[in-house]
Amino acid sequence: MIKAGIIGATGYVGNELLRLLLRHPSVEVSGLRDVDSYEGKGYDSVYANYAEICNIKMTDQDTVIQNADVVFTCLPAGFSERIAINCLESGKMLIDLGSDMRIRDEDVNKEWYGIDRQRQDIIAQTVYSIPELHGQRLKSARIIANPGCYPTTAALALAPAVEQGLVDTKTIIIDSKSGVTGAGKGPTAETQYAEVNEAFRAYKIGQHRHIPEIEQILSDIAGSSVKVTFTPHLLPVNRGILSTVYAGLSSDLSQDELWDVYNDFYKDKRFVRILPQGMAANMKNVKYSNYCDISVHTDRRTGRLIVVSAIDNMVKGAAGQAIQNMNIALGLEESMGLDLIPPTF
Amino acid sequence: MIKAGIIGATGYVGNELLRLLLRHPSVEVSGLRDVDSYEGKGYDSVYANYAEICNIKMTDQDTVIQNADVVFTCLPAGFSERIAINCLESGKMLIDLGSDMRIRDEDVNKEWYGIDRQRQDIIAQTVYSIPELHGQRLKSARIIANPGCYPTTAALALAPAVEQGLVDTKTIIIDSKSGVTGAGKGPTAETQYAEVNEAFRAYKIGQHRHIPEIEQILSDIAGSSVKVTFTPHLLPVNRGILSTVYAGLSSDLSQDELWDVYNDFYKDKRFVRILPQGMAANMKNVKYSNYCDISVHTDRRTGRLIVVSAIDNMVKGAAGQAIQNMNIALGLEESMGLDLIPPTF
Amino acid sequence: MIKAGIIGATGYVGNELLRLLLRHPSVEVSGLRDVDSYEGKGYDSVYANYAEICNIKMTDQDTVIQNADVVFTCLPAGFSERIAINCLESGKMLIDLGSDMRIRDEDVNKEWYGIDRQRQDIIAQTVYSIPELHGQRLKSARIIANPGCYPTTAALALAPAVEQGLVDTKTIIIDSKSGVTGAGKGPTAETQYAEVNEAFRAYKIGQHRHIPEIEQILSDIAGSSVKVTFTPHLLPVNRGILSTVYAGLSSDLSQDELWDVYNDFYKDKRFVRILPQGMAANMKNVKYSNYCDISVHTDRRTGRLIVVSAIDNMVKGAAGQAIQNMNIALGLEESMGLDLIPPTF
Amino acid sequence: MIKAGIIGATGYVGNELLRLLLRHPSVEVSGLRDVDSYEGKGYDSVYANYAEICNIKMTDQDTVIQNADVVFTCLPAGFSERIAINCLESGKMLIDLGSDMRIRDEDVNKEWYGIDRQRQDIIAQTVYSIPELHGQRLKSARIIANPGCYPTTAALALAPAVEQGLVDTKTIIIDSKSGVTGAGKGPTAETQYAEVNEAFRAYKIGQHRHIPEIEQILSDIAGSSVKVTFTPHLLPVNRGILSTVYAGLSSDLSQDELWDVYNDFYKDKRFVRILPQGMAANMKNVKYSNYCDISVHTDRRTGRLIVVSAIDNMVKGAAGQAIQNMNIALGLEESMGLDLIPPTF
Repeated sequence: MIKAGIIGATGYVGNELLRLLLRHPSVEVSGLRDVDSYEGKGYDSVYANYAEICNIKMTDQDTVIQNADVVFTCLPAGFSERIAINCLESGKMLIDLGSDMRIRDEDVNKEWYGIDRQRQDIIAQTVYSIPELHGQRLKSARIIANPGCYPTTAALALAPAVEQGLVDTKTIIIDSKSGVTGAGKGPTAETQYAEVNEAFRAYKIGQHRHIPEIEQILSDIAGSSVKVTFTPHLLPVNRGILSTVYAGLSSDLSQDELWDVYNDFYKDKRFVRILPQGMAANMKNVKYSNYCDISVHTDRRTGRLIVVSAIDNMVKGAAGQAIQNMNIALGLEESMGLDLIPPTF
Repeated sequence: MIKAGIIGATGYVGNELLRLLLRHPSVEVSGLRDVDSYEGKGYDSVYANYAEICNIKMTDQDTVIQNADVVFTCLPAGFSERIAINCLESGKMLIDLGSDMRIRDEDVNKEWYGIDRQRQDIIAQTVYSIPELHGQRLKSARIIANPGCYPTTAALALAPAVEQGLVDTKTIIIDSKSGVTGAGKGPTAETQYAEVNEAFRAYKIGQHRHIPEIEQILSDIAGSSVKVTFTPHLLPVNRGILSTVYAGLSSDLSQDELWDVYNDFYKDKRFVRILPQGMAANMKNVKYSNYCDISVHTDRRTGRLIVVSAIDNMVKGAAGQAIQNMNIALGLEESMGLDLIPPTF
Repeated sequence: MIKAGIIGATGYVGNELLRLLLRHPSVEVSGLRDVDSYEGKGYDSVYANYAEICNIKMTDQDTVIQNADVVFTCLPAGFSERIAINCLESGKMLIDLGSDMRIRDEDVNKEWYGIDRQRQDIIAQTVYSIPELHGQRLKSARIIANPGCYPTTAALALAPAVEQGLVDTKTIIIDSKSGVTGAGKGPTAETQYAEVNEAFRAYKIGQHRHIPEIEQILSDIAGSSVKVTFTPHLLPVNRGILSTVYAGLSSDLSQDELWDVYNDFYKDKRFVRILPQGMAANMKNVKYSNYCDISVHTDRRTGRLIVVSAIDNMVKGAAGQAIQNMNIALGLEESMGLDLIPPTF
Repeated sequence: MIKAGIIGATGYVGNELLRLLLRHPSVEVSGLRDVDSYEGKGYDSVYANYAEICNIKMTDQDTVIQNADVVFTCLPAGFSERIAINCLESGKMLIDLGSDMRIRDEDVNKEWYGIDRQRQDIIAQTVYSIPELHGQRLKSARIIANPGCYPTTAALALAPAVEQGLVDTKTIIIDSKSGVTGAGKGPTAETQYAEVNEAFRAYKIGQHRHIPEIEQILSDIAGSSVKVTFTPHLLPVNRGILSTVYAGLSSDLSQDELWDVYNDFYKDKRFVRILPQGMAANMKNVKYSNYCDISVHTDRRTGRLIVVSAIDNMVKGAAGQAIQNMNIALGLEESMGLDLIPPTF
């Protein structure tokens, strides 16, 4: 059994990760560290839904690292680099669900996150991985940067077209809509029920920190610098992200041929489902699962490719993808512990 | 592996049952019969969330029965009795999630359901079971009547107090609130989004068909005829039932002692969780799981016991409880396939 | 034009009151005082929905009182008594939407609110008014205590039956369900979107501060001390309260006769609608309006009266009722400024 | 008083129109015609929220036309042309909230709606009007085509930039999100509560019938043919549309200057609110009102203009805009009966 520890276990992402790890057939949860002030308390005293399921007592960070084979960090920006150093020195694998080690370029990272990272060598050793695109990099990874939720939808929607050179990469627009849990657990005026319910709004237009991450992935695939327009919106639902992605077609492939390109690209990928032609992706069909549903459309009148991708932001967008990365890195079956059927409602 | 067939697999309950059976470690789904007109189609062509998960083709009723060890029926009133006869003759176990065989008394059944049942011998052989209350009856059961969702919450909330004679059974009031999936899949004006969203209403006050079922259970426990006031309400949520149950205390046990009675009553029952004193049950904490959460309160000023119970109407209130009944009847671990952690959101 | 000032204008109740007063044909809003730290700012800088509608600058409390004919206070417990003294001395009418002056009995108030009121003479001069029940008291009122939201539903549902002696007042149970805005504007963990959405729970069972208020009203009507069991619940909707009220019938009036009693009792009351027999009250039908919808039911099997009442907690349960009280006290048409049609969705 | 009749009064749009007309100071509702089979019934028997508010009996179409000065039609495609002829002959003004007379070009109309219109002379006399863009056309209008909900948001968001030639009209992408009432009242599987709640999806990608309407408006403004990419999505809310509109900037105006262009363009328009820079439009801030909120953004990194516009689909997107058109056509104050403050929640 692999011993897994979670640092930041009481936030929304840590909470979901714990739920999945507790049912992973090859994992034993060996330690939890809160993000608040719950040290010494049982997990079920913080989350009543875990009553009679998990009463693991929360401890300090060093104990979690010491007792684990794999450490998962689910923390706000700025905390993971030091933990990475600690893990490397202790010979532990680290999977960081935060943003600290996603961006390779130091200047870009500084510009968007405003944080001075201390150890470029740590970043250099870090493997960033959306498993369907970068899984082969994971074989000897010791530090894994788990992707952001929005970039997962954007990259999976665009990778086949960009790789095959089917679209003009200067015309990419990503219009994304996310459920509220993406904002995390802390109570804010903006995430109060009466502010979100029966409401819908855009935010951080052209300024969201996931922009450089999306551009890093796409530039790698394209082999040249790609810039995108990205607009996130807040949906009145608990979970899920749906991204509608637009790009000018630079190819005259037919709708059928484009659809074949997507199917071929993901043909061995268990967690990406290309929808039958004529259907459009729906967030509802992937909830509580690790799937990414993708529908491929062409607007012949205007010469554009439109791709709609949907994930559960907490599973494929965070905790599930982290487990998928762990499974591959450890040589386990990729879908172990992720065999989740999206409920119909 | 136990072969399980579902008749009525495309309704909401059948759909949820399939989801759970597909992940049950000792079950193989051997056949599906729709409730609509999908014969010959794959299940994933009806429910897009099952894409690449279940493409079992739907067949006719006889084929489903023939290929199964256990047949589950998820049908409207009036269809199950004949299937029960068929199953008995073919030596198949039947678990009926419908209402046809829940009420023992023929007159009572006629009065509330308006249906003439043909074979009182079938009803006599049927075992009605909420596992925590009637599990011991299941050992040699061939036909099992799975309880209604509302009665499950009411019976589990009241059983300890009624059995111990702690309340005046003439004073029982059950105020229940259910999510929309309780109404089933068929499109109706009443269950349209804009009718249910931002709305809340009572319905069938004192007239709901679950009343005789609740009274049958409580009368059995009390050893005398019990009548209850029952009011169901429709909540703007997909899943869940919460019942607030009132009864005049006929005992002068303290709040602590009452709480102990409930804890003792359910101490070996994996799926009933008695909440710590001071907490009140929340539907959210049992969603997508087979738990029933119960909180026990006393209103000393008015001499009443107040019990709040919460379940997921689709799991503990239907599909999960059916599997729990099957597990016990077949001598499997009671919780097999039901090891579900309620997600935090 | 009557000059109206609001103290506590940026809370949820103050906000709704402002919305209604701005469209009241005989009122001019003469001053606003925030509950936060917005002094000097325009109202539209706090609430973007008021852009180009209301940019009144918020001032201090004394200025608001000085410039007003009628002062409305929408404040947490403990702040209104001093303002009442100030208003009395300045010859201003005060309508308090808070709880400070609702309970007449000093000991009862102390027990439930934990506050020592200083001036029993102020309380003695205060007129508590649900207009349909106490409107005649308002003629020379200078200080008006506006009722709580839950008590409004409970009192209107029970008044006819209690006044006519049709129910046993020792058997009253009030099961209430409220939208989230009842909890006010301040961000809390409990009112975060993901905590409330797809959730439902009871809270403060037998301990809510509206209990003594309900008992005060019903005891006045009954002419003897009435105690009630009251359970509030939190609904995943923005607005509205629905209360399901139970009481043992002490009369053998038929369902038709009981319905007539309710119709007669409210026959001249514009804002109470007794539903046709066979219908049950729905929160949706009174949203954004000052109506209270009431449906009257009997459960003959158990000898109980069941009354369902529904209001918009922000209008009839707070701001609208305050204006209704003001209108009567000032000799205006009772419905002035309250001519609101509940939208269908 | 102007006598107004509604044909199609029991659909969602007709229902909302009635609500507004009943409070219009210069209008008397003179007749109603259902869309179902309610002839002879009172309106409140169909919609319980109208109890004691409107019991007008529904009559046949000819009676409604005969008794009215202005006839409003809220009907599915294909029914309005004949009514238009009838109104013209009877000297009645017609305001059509349906789609039959929006598209001028017969071939385009046939292509998208599949309907053969009989009388091109009727279409030629019809005035299509978004009041902020076409209000001056209304002076002698007898037949008015009221715009679609999506086109209203798209046109108001783009008109200033297109008119001033600030964007490349070949790069326009409109990503729209609508509440459920846009789909109308008829019960369908797709609009059941459990299908829409906690869900989000795109539909009719590049194929929605509002596309030619958007292109007609923009082509008129641009003075040349404009084609757009348009993707509608279904939001889990009752009301509202938010459109996020993208276009490549062909000008090097600064963000401040662009904002000024929008402010100038709408400076005398009561119902369009350009948000302060730094804010993004939120559907919540215009609910139950006739406002269109617009926020103007530039993405300098990619050279794009991003405009977010939000309306209430039932008010500014349908019934409110129809009244606004009527007011202007009849020489009334444009905002009469539309003086609605969007509630905060």
